[in-house]
Amino acid sequence: MMKHYLLTPGPTPIPPEVALKEALPILHHRTSEFGAIYKDVAEGLEYVFQTRNKVYMFAASGTGAMEMAVVNLLSPGDEVIVASCGNFGDRWMKIAQGYGVKVISVSVEWGKVVKPAEIEKVLKENPNIKAVFTTFTETSTGVVNDIRIVGEIVSKTNAVLVVDAISGLVGQEFRTDDWKVDIVVAGSQKGFMLAPGLAFITLSDKAWKLVETSKIPKFYFDIKKYRKSYTINETPFTPPVTLIVALKESIRLIKERGLENMWNDYKLLAKAARAGMKALRLELFGEVPCEVVTSVFVPVEIGDKIVKTLREKYGVSIAGGQGDLKGKIIRFAHMGYIGKADLLVGFACLEMVLVELGVKIEKGKAVAAAEEVLLNV
Amino acid sequence: MMKHYLLTPGPTPIPPEVALKEALPILHHRTSEFGAIYKDVAEGLEYVFQTRNKVYMFAASGTGAMEMAVVNLLSPGDEVIVASCGNFGDRWMKIAQGYGVKVISVSVEWGKVVKPAEIEKVLKENPNIKAVFTTFTETSTGVVNDIRIVGEIVSKTNAVLVVDAISGLVGQEFRTDDWKVDIVVAGSQKGFMLAPGLAFITLSDKAWKLVETSKIPKFYFDIKKYRKSYTINETPFTPPVTLIVALKESIRLIKERGLENMWNDYKLLAKAARAGMKALRLELFGEVPCEVVTSVFVPVEIGDKIVKTLREKYGVSIAGGQGDLKGKIIRFAHMGYIGKADLLVGFACLEMVLVELGVKIEKGKAVAAAEEVLLNV
Repeated sequence: MMKHYLLTPGPTPIPPEVALKEALPILHHRTSEFGAIYKDVAEGLEYVFQTRNKVYMFAASGTGAMEMAVVNLLSPGDEVIVASCGNFGDRWMKIAQGYGVKVISVSVEWGKVVKPAEIEKVLKENPNIKAVFTTFTETSTGVVNDIRIVGEIVSKTNAVLVVDAISGLVGQEFRTDDWKVDIVVAGSQKGFMLAPGLAFITLSDKAWKLVETSKIPKFYFDIKKYRKSYTINETPFTPPVTLIVALKESIRLIKERGLENMWNDYKLLAKAARAGMKALRLELFGEVPCEVVTSVFVPVEIGDKIVKTLREKYGVSIAGGQGDLKGKIIRFAHMGYIGKADLLVGFACLEMVLVELGVKIEKGKAVAAAEEVLLNV
Repeated sequence: MMKHYLLTPGPTPIPPEVALKEALPILHHRTSEFGAIYKDVAEGLEYVFQTRNKVYMFAASGTGAMEMAVVNLLSPGDEVIVASCGNFGDRWMKIAQGYGVKVISVSVEWGKVVKPAEIEKVLKENPNIKAVFTTFTETSTGVVNDIRIVGEIVSKTNAVLVVDAISGLVGQEFRTDDWKVDIVVAGSQKGFMLAPGLAFITLSDKAWKLVETSKIPKFYFDIKKYRKSYTINETPFTPPVTLIVALKESIRLIKERGLENMWNDYKLLAKAARAGMKALRLELFGEVPCEVVTSVFVPVEIGDKIVKTLREKYGVSIAGGQGDLKGKIIRFAHMGYIGKADLLVGFACLEMVLVELGVKIEKGKAVAAAEEVLLNV
């Protein structure tokens, strides 16, 4: 009977009208009826990605979409840049290196943001670089990278820019075409307010040219198969039908609210979250905080205890630190189907848990600080 | 307002109690609460697969699970046998060849079943063969292969036996361990009575030894990552949480009915389906018909018209022929959440459509013949 509140950086809560669509009877995926839904969703995705290029869907986690980008663009021995600032940026490196791709790392310490000037310098020194891989919002640390500037730089070279926008899409301003991003990958369980299991990828013409030269073997992740099936509103392999049907509803909700309004909604939640943390004297972690998750330092080593107690005692799920940050930070998400009231629930329970764990705080202060921000809009 | 009846060889209908679980609020996948469900489901899968080996889950279509088998077992240049008797058997060939694996084809004409004696002969002539890939129920043609005999043969060699049981598991007797099958792959949208998007794979100790030698690069499909996460009831990448939660309910239903009873239920449906087709004078296609789908020849070229009319006029979805069989056969499935009454609905509507398309049949005869079988149990 524990009531649950999901404030984790993915999966996120799902609107009930979207969740119910996941329970609808199965449509066969090779019918005109499903085809019409597929087409509608594919076009809706172009709006969400802010692109005029096609967006492809398939059954996988976001990591599957990252691998799809790597194996379709490159050949063993190719040189690429990975600009990482955390766990998910590092994943680009592991995937690329696993396929025999030479990675020049332009990475920064966790908590910092990637340095566009460094990327520019390395690109100039290495004219053979095929692609630059980076992350939009890096939820392992809670920062956001300036993709617009990176796009400006990479677009002037022969390299393509590949961005993992899995956690940030919908939650924070992101413009694929305007920012000159060639490949964007995303997943269903974050800003899309949907269950996990559906992955997305979109490619520019410049990226498609590179696809033609790629020699890494692939089958399930072969993007050309998806391009071909797309023309008849199908996927080459059975898609997660229920998730796509539910995504139609989710996109309808996003369109109804409007993407820019949603960006502003999360911006406000992020501002309130930062104010709440400040009131608790929990120092922000991360050079440029993103708008989908707020990461803060906690008194040494009690991070995991906070997370555990919040969940077990109050049903509130937040995230702890990953890797070296384990125990040292907590990550409080405001992405997906999370509203103002959810944020206040999170802070009220966090206050209680901190008191219980012996941290000296003033009860109600974080909630008050967050309310202050939420009221003054 | 068209009422739908899904009689296709996957996806299949879903029991309402399973479908509703897909709509439950999202659980975070790195919590003890989800871990307990994961463990429960993983153990239930051992029962369904009839194995004492572990069964791994991940977000993908069944093809993803096939690729997982290939890329984890083999290295470029390895020799394997593919024993194909249809579209899905041929897929093994495409995947393996794509990764630089040398394929010795022991394939048969579509409609026939694979020849164990041929496999035995080729294995003897080629002692370096690492693996034999084949299909349990081949839904593109409607036949079932004798996996028990193939297992007997392959188990006496150094090769491992890899079986695509995607469409047949739950629907027809299949015993991983007793039949000496080393790797079995399956998907959620067939016998499991679940939405598509979740894939399964299980490996024997003999297969795991081969995994240690594999040199094909992989990341998302790297089975070792799944083995490691399994020990803490997790998956390396975000799993399709809602599908796993729903699978728990689906496995509960399967256990409640009992696997052997389910096999018998589908066996009866298959017998009734064959009787109905015979009454319509539609000749069975396939040397050894399987128990999850019934394929029959139809008067030349009207196969696709039958499928289209059934769906558009009566909401009944069946499947037509693939590849060279396009238009020539229809495939009428009795897998997943399909009962006796659904079968009769299918036949009644098929009768009407045949009359409308000018085929000379006696109305009610197929239904009567199917009823006769269903009554005499």
